[in-house]
Amino acid sequence: MNPTINIGLFGFGVVGQSVYKVIAGAKNAHARIRRICVRDASKPRAIATPDGVLTDNPDRIFNDPDINLIVEVVDDARASYRIVTTALKRGIPVVSGSKAMIAAHLPELIELQQEYGAALLYDASSCGSIPVIRNLEEYYDNDLLLEVKGILNGSSNYILSRVFDHDEEYGHALRKAQEAGFAESDPTFDISGMDSLYKLIIITVHALGVYVAPERIFTCGIADIHDFDIRYAREKGVKIKLVAQVVKVGDAQFTMFVMPEFVAPSKYIYSVDNEYNGVVIRGECYDRQFMFGKGAGGLPTASSILSDIMARRHGYRYEYKKMGYIDRPEYTTDVLLRVYVHYKETDVPSLLPFERVREMFVSECGNYVIGDISLGRLIENRALLDAPDVFAVNIPQFFLDKDD
Amino acid sequence: MNPTINIGLFGFGVVGQSVYKVIAGAKNAHARIRRICVRDASKPRAIATPDGVLTDNPDRIFNDPDINLIVEVVDDARASYRIVTTALKRGIPVVSGSKAMIAAHLPELIELQQEYGAALLYDASSCGSIPVIRNLEEYYDNDLLLEVKGILNGSSNYILSRVFDHDEEYGHALRKAQEAGFAESDPTFDISGMDSLYKLIIITVHALGVYVAPERIFTCGIADIHDFDIRYAREKGVKIKLVAQVVKVGDAQFTMFVMPEFVAPSKYIYSVDNEYNGVVIRGECYDRQFMFGKGAGGLPTASSILSDIMARRHGYRYEYKKMGYIDRPEYTTDVLLRVYVHYKETDVPSLLPFERVREMFVSECGNYVIGDISLGRLIENRALLDAPDVFAVNIPQFFLDKDD
Repeated sequence: MNPTINIGLFGFGVVGQSVYKVIAGAKNAHARIRRICVRDASKPRAIATPDGVLTDNPDRIFNDPDINLIVEVVDDARASYRIVTTALKRGIPVVSGSKAMIAAHLPELIELQQEYGAALLYDASSCGSIPVIRNLEEYYDNDLLLEVKGILNGSSNYILSRVFDHDEEYGHALRKAQEAGFAESDPTFDISGMDSLYKLIIITVHALGVYVAPERIFTCGIADIHDFDIRYAREKGVKIKLVAQVVKVGDAQFTMFVMPEFVAPSKYIYSVDNEYNGVVIRGECYDRQFMFGKGAGGLPTASSILSDIMARRHGYRYEYKKMGYIDRPEYTTDVLLRVYVHYKETDVPSLLPFERVREMFVSECGNYVIGDISLGRLIENRALLDAPDVFAVNIPQFFLDKDD
Repeated sequence: MNPTINIGLFGFGVVGQSVYKVIAGAKNAHARIRRICVRDASKPRAIATPDGVLTDNPDRIFNDPDINLIVEVVDDARASYRIVTTALKRGIPVVSGSKAMIAAHLPELIELQQEYGAALLYDASSCGSIPVIRNLEEYYDNDLLLEVKGILNGSSNYILSRVFDHDEEYGHALRKAQEAGFAESDPTFDISGMDSLYKLIIITVHALGVYVAPERIFTCGIADIHDFDIRYAREKGVKIKLVAQVVKVGDAQFTMFVMPEFVAPSKYIYSVDNEYNGVVIRGECYDRQFMFGKGAGGLPTASSILSDIMARRHGYRYEYKKMGYIDRPEYTTDVLLRVYVHYKETDVPSLLPFERVREMFVSECGNYVIGDISLGRLIENRALLDAPDVFAVNIPQFFLDKDD
């Protein structure tokens, strides 16, 4: 066991400062932050650090032989990529919270870990404080795992909660999320579903041992939600939540997507409100397990990063065991969904190639169509669904058989 | 990595047979059951096993050099103790589900693991399919952890759910729990709170690094619940749940106990019904996390045992790191609780040394007193509280200051 972890920290924003505070307060962590690399070392900071700790020269971390762990919480995917790959190539283990970067480069990052023998941990990248990655990696065996489904983005969930439970106006709720520090610096990242998508990609690698690149996965956010949709959901007694899911379909295939969903009160994720995240893990033997916790904010993320730091103290690394399994399931988009699509000007019923239309509603306030459509078709028609007058919601009761 | 795990299985009841089925169905587990030791090998079984697999001679497992893991799911604490200690002394790793035995002998079992270098895993012993032990051991750092509280016994929770939500009579609900295979062969174990207590002791070792022997911990079950109590709880809009908890009080101390509790609808565990377990982990940074899953039944337990088996394939062992921490908190019973005590003949208000009585109710149907009392006093008055006409429930809004 390493007696003390000497950390080089990249990034000193909301999360970086929380990491600093949490480590300072953790008596038994045997970890200390030796140096912090920031873009501008002269900028005034809310937290005072000892002289010489702040630097704007990355090499003062990379070239310091006493630093045996790099913690990277930089809010810039390209900088994060440079830091993590440089560290791994020099054999320095890294803890990272940069989901966008990890989701985009995971195959390469796995190879680098194997080639140079240095570990990369990133439990903090998915679901803030909930230990989803490590549990999928260590605890939930592939053969038994059928589905991982949940609310993975605290900020968009906070907004939807304010809108649904507190009758707040969408823009107002968004501003509050930003003020509370839940939203990323660019909130479109949260609202477009991209943040959930990146987490889902990482989760899928550890759940099923398969990496699927972001551009191959259907992702649809909440930016274009309309009062019309909120009224519709309320009338039906359900909430609209932004849900990410990876689901086995049959023995040899799985599908995955991120999309708003009508969630009934009987579902575990119905009560996941505000900035919380909730993940349902479904397996053959144990049915459903539910993990719930704070998904956004500096301190919850920092506590997760501290767990990764402590894990390094004991030499822990992800083994990516499931990627070595012979019978890994294959990704498919050939599944039928039933979706609600609200529209105003865009002629959705004519333009969207439904296999079957189930309901249509036309009114002066807005129109909707409910129909069955394959996930592949939804991907082909992303541009249509992205139109500002169009809002699509998954009706999750089942994956339909093609013959249904 | 060990190419194949060859298992010697002790016990072939509900859990043992489920383990057999789950391993047979797990393609990527690389595990097989080589031999099963039972008390009577000639007894007819629901599951057919190949010739020569069943034996009633333990040495056919202990002396088989090809067996590299022992899985022990025997429903007899003394037999379980013999099996586990014999295996560890011979350097054979063990996966065990015997919480009573583990809770009673954990300090010795930890020493044996260290002395002989063989690992003992027992995630299946606590909360069925929920990976509580491993998460406490690996993920939740001591300094940040404030409380672990939850419903740890599926069988008593099932009974309370039937009584509360389905207006069933207590004895009827108990029989149904036994028929469904949720209850232990001796259901008093579940109902007296002892099963929850054993799990709480194991959890506390992995949460705070401190072992407290069963006899030092206040434990109070649900056997003497009365219609009167159920009506009272309903009127107050709460449920009665059997709750186990370990809680830090101040910086240097913690307390723990098992007791029925009035649970308000706003609490996570309020919605943990039927045979489910739910655990709330509270920490300084992440506030509350909630883990929820099936806590009783053969298959959920078997899936947890499979996770332990897979962990052994990768050489995993508990490090008991928190037991090595310098600043471990100390166990105290010097905390004030506020309790509701229902009684008929026993003169509870005179006999139970309350620090302060808050409410009293006397009627032809039954009487109750609500008052503040220290946990130490409750332990001293166990015999009184065990009287069949007495039923005590924790009112959990706070730990009271002595001065309150």
